[in-house]
Amino acid sequence: MQLLKERILREGKNLGNGILKVDGFINHQVDPLLMDACGAELARRFARVGATKILTAEISGIAPALMTGKHLRLPVVYARKHKPITMPDQVFLTLAPSHTKGRMVELIISPEYLQGGERVLIIDDFLASGATILGLVRLAEVAGAQVVGIGTLVEKTFEQGRASLEPLGVPIESLAPVASLDGDRITFLE
Amino acid sequence: MQLLKERILREGKNLGNGILKVDGFINHQVDPLLMDACGAELARRFARVGATKILTAEISGIAPALMTGKHLRLPVVYARKHKPITMPDQVFLTLAPSHTKGRMVELIISPEYLQGGERVLIIDDFLASGATILGLVRLAEVAGAQVVGIGTLVEKTFEQGRASLEPLGVPIESLAPVASLDGDRITFLE
Repeated sequence: MQLLKERILREGKNLGNGILKVDGFINHQVDPLLMDACGAELARRFARVGATKILTAEISGIAPALMTGKHLRLPVVYARKHKPITMPDQVFLTLAPSHTKGRMVELIISPEYLQGGERVLIIDDFLASGATILGLVRLAEVAGAQVVGIGTLVEKTFEQGRASLEPLGVPIESLAPVASLDGDRITFLE
Repeated sequence: MQLLKERILREGKNLGNGILKVDGFINHQVDPLLMDACGAELARRFARVGATKILTAEISGIAPALMTGKHLRLPVVYARKHKPITMPDQVFLTLAPSHTKGRMVELIISPEYLQGGERVLIIDDFLASGATILGLVRLAEVAGAQVVGIGTLVEKTFEQGRASLEPLGVPIESLAPVASLDGDRITFLE
């Protein structure tokens, strides 16, 4: 998606160690119009998968998932990393490694909002190692729901996350697949 | 705002101790179309305050802030509760009591995205004690920015947060001001 790629080229920063900083428009400051356009494009790509619900993980998945949900007119559930007091005792919980925290974090969903028979479209900001998304897949499976697609804004293709998701046999889309980060040079896959 | 009030009456749950559970459409599962409508209404109410930026706190402020930002065509900054590795060493940081965690949490903003001279509209999901919003006000002030309005989806008027914000002398709007929670009965202010 040209709009997102151009923004990354203009404002993204390679911090080294494979870290691409996009805090100015995705992760800390968010550009709602860019997110709306990304949501529209993800909705277009997944228009035919028959999703009934969008699933993401807090925190930075919320903006792209919300905008995709708006365009597909579907509810969005975001997995919590800490169980709030409003959640029932019985929950779906899995552990996933956090690349920014260097430790495992919990991903928690209330059974109230993810049920058997649902067709789940997973949306997140980044596809890197795929570990967070695989955590969401496990939560969907334990709820008896079916994952029907996986969409992200940015894919760090050099972290091979896609290979860990392909066995699921569902469409995987990323709007800006980054081939390499080299000094000031960010290159996208064709 | 009628649409939001009706949804709260239909699906909100009084959990006791002043806790109103709205996890089915605001806090864990989000209804993007409802959020879009709430964002449009908040944008309408604050159309004339001359805001240059929207400020909120992760996590549950993101959805209403993002939709308000979309309608006002303004960037949205969400204060982080944990400093990510992409953030510079020097940050704006304050502490605010969390009503759901029973302890103080950090609110952190990078100086990259909140600068002197900005006119800040604060948007959050709940106005309860006002403590989180006052934390955001302190962050704006220390950045040299000016708060020009405060908008929330739900106000628990019985927690008196509005009184702590009124000395700021800026417009305060809530789309669903709850007067009382009594068993199954949720009452709104006129």
